[in-house]
Amino acid sequence: MTGAADRERPIGVFDSGLGGLTVLRALHRRLPCEDIVYFGDTARVPYGTKGARTVVDFARQDAGLLVARGVKMVVVACNTASAFALQHLREVLPVPVLGVIEPGVATALRATRGGPVGVIGTPGTIGSGRYQEGLALGRDGLAGLSPERILVGECPLLVPLVEAGWLDHPATGMILDTYLEPLRAAGVDTLILGCTHYPLLKDPIAAYMGEKTVLVDSAEALAEAAEALLGERGLRRRDGAPGDREPAGRLEFHLSDIPWKFAEIGARFLGKPITDVRTVSLEEMEEAGRLPTEG
Amino acid sequence: MTGAADRERPIGVFDSGLGGLTVLRALHRRLPCEDIVYFGDTARVPYGTKGARTVVDFARQDAGLLVARGVKMVVVACNTASAFALQHLREVLPVPVLGVIEPGVATALRATRGGPVGVIGTPGTIGSGRYQEGLALGRDGLAGLSPERILVGECPLLVPLVEAGWLDHPATGMILDTYLEPLRAAGVDTLILGCTHYPLLKDPIAAYMGEKTVLVDSAEALAEAAEALLGERGLRRRDGAPGDREPAGRLEFHLSDIPWKFAEIGARFLGKPITDVRTVSLEEMEEAGRLPTEG
Repeated sequence: MTGAADRERPIGVFDSGLGGLTVLRALHRRLPCEDIVYFGDTARVPYGTKGARTVVDFARQDAGLLVARGVKMVVVACNTASAFALQHLREVLPVPVLGVIEPGVATALRATRGGPVGVIGTPGTIGSGRYQEGLALGRDGLAGLSPERILVGECPLLVPLVEAGWLDHPATGMILDTYLEPLRAAGVDTLILGCTHYPLLKDPIAAYMGEKTVLVDSAEALAEAAEALLGERGLRRRDGAPGDREPAGRLEFHLSDIPWKFAEIGARFLGKPITDVRTVSLEEMEEAGRLPTEG
Repeated sequence: MTGAADRERPIGVFDSGLGGLTVLRALHRRLPCEDIVYFGDTARVPYGTKGARTVVDFARQDAGLLVARGVKMVVVACNTASAFALQHLREVLPVPVLGVIEPGVATALRATRGGPVGVIGTPGTIGSGRYQEGLALGRDGLAGLSPERILVGECPLLVPLVEAGWLDHPATGMILDTYLEPLRAAGVDTLILGCTHYPLLKDPIAAYMGEKTVLVDSAEALAEAAEALLGERGLRRRDGAPGDREPAGRLEFHLSDIPWKFAEIGARFLGKPITDVRTVSLEEMEEAGRLPTEG
């Protein structure tokens, strides 16, 4: 699809919950004229500790919901869903699908200066081996890394700490130290923040790792990749000449649950209050999961 | 139903995930001849940070699944599900339903010696106000407490800490101190552990609160209440005379997801390895949610 009407359609973004709002924010900053429809599966968050089969089933429903809303591209903001479901979604969806792992890998390969590269993420993301594979294979003409240059760390507690808003609590510092110590000791020169929640901990992570370690925020890398992909496919809403005064793209929010302290947590990720949220019922989720193969 | 065939049916226990295994363990110890079917909604855990409507929808599916397996009673092991869904389940299910809050309240009212009573739980459980209501109204002939004797604390990080197995980590101690400090300062003489995960932190909680504070473990209180309820309804499998050599009741496990590190986490809650686990698909969950009202 490359018609003018297709260009006007929104970008779809889904995540396991509210963490993907950091990705939406980066997309909106880079592509301010694009409409974006966000779906957060807040009823079933988190994905990062759950099995591959479950994550694929959920991701299929999430993406189906966006496709039913007429999106021109699906962005998988969740690292765990990208790790387990990207291939499947590319096979079943009628629109281009972009995950967060490939752009993060490419950015890290550009950033490293010959030292080890670290990745932190959920047990699911790390356990899937996708980042390790990507870094080993190389990408975008960049050479892959030898196995001893690839280091990973599972950080299951960072998501709940961020959601609880304990960004500055001493306990958070202590937990970060425990997770990051082996990566700092190994002297990683580049560290991929392999979860949408981690950018909110960028400051304490940077402080602990030291200024020589480059932090790769998947949200920024993904927004760049989305811009490139839309351009290649002729799907960008407008070229967006600098200085243009354009009405900003509309943002639309759908969630499967309105969690406790939603307003507070949502604003933390988005950087501003979220308005006009629509909730999606269990029945709609079920229906959405059937769409991609049958529609 | 009070026939001999009904007495032979299993007890059903459901929880948002694996935490309810502490309840199953207490039930199995007190009622060793009873078969027990456990369902853990590991695909959608946790419930404690999610909204009331979502928790009711999930609980309805969970309980429906147990009823479809022919249980004679449904035990809601999850505090958050007990807080939001107990009333609804009692209206729609064809078997007796027991929640974890009422037995915990009764035990605390028996234990207190005139001082304040504290409750710690998830944001959902505390936000629902059910424990506060129960303690204020009184129960089982025990007088209710005046408002200034009821103190609560939301502890959203304790569930992920327990699931990560960080029972002895210094960060866990620091987080417990932050949560418990106001309750200790107020001099609570009784503290309800209002979440199935918290009994695994009983030792550090007891150490921090001091020996004068009685800790109420909902699992024990609930097992006692289950025994009483089965007795009243003529549904006990046998009277279980002391010294009887009986074949132990069978335990059956159903989960909606096999999470990362399931074997390790499950064994931590149950106190022994879990064998013969059956996974339940999303479709079966949907089907189960329709059962109670139509069946």
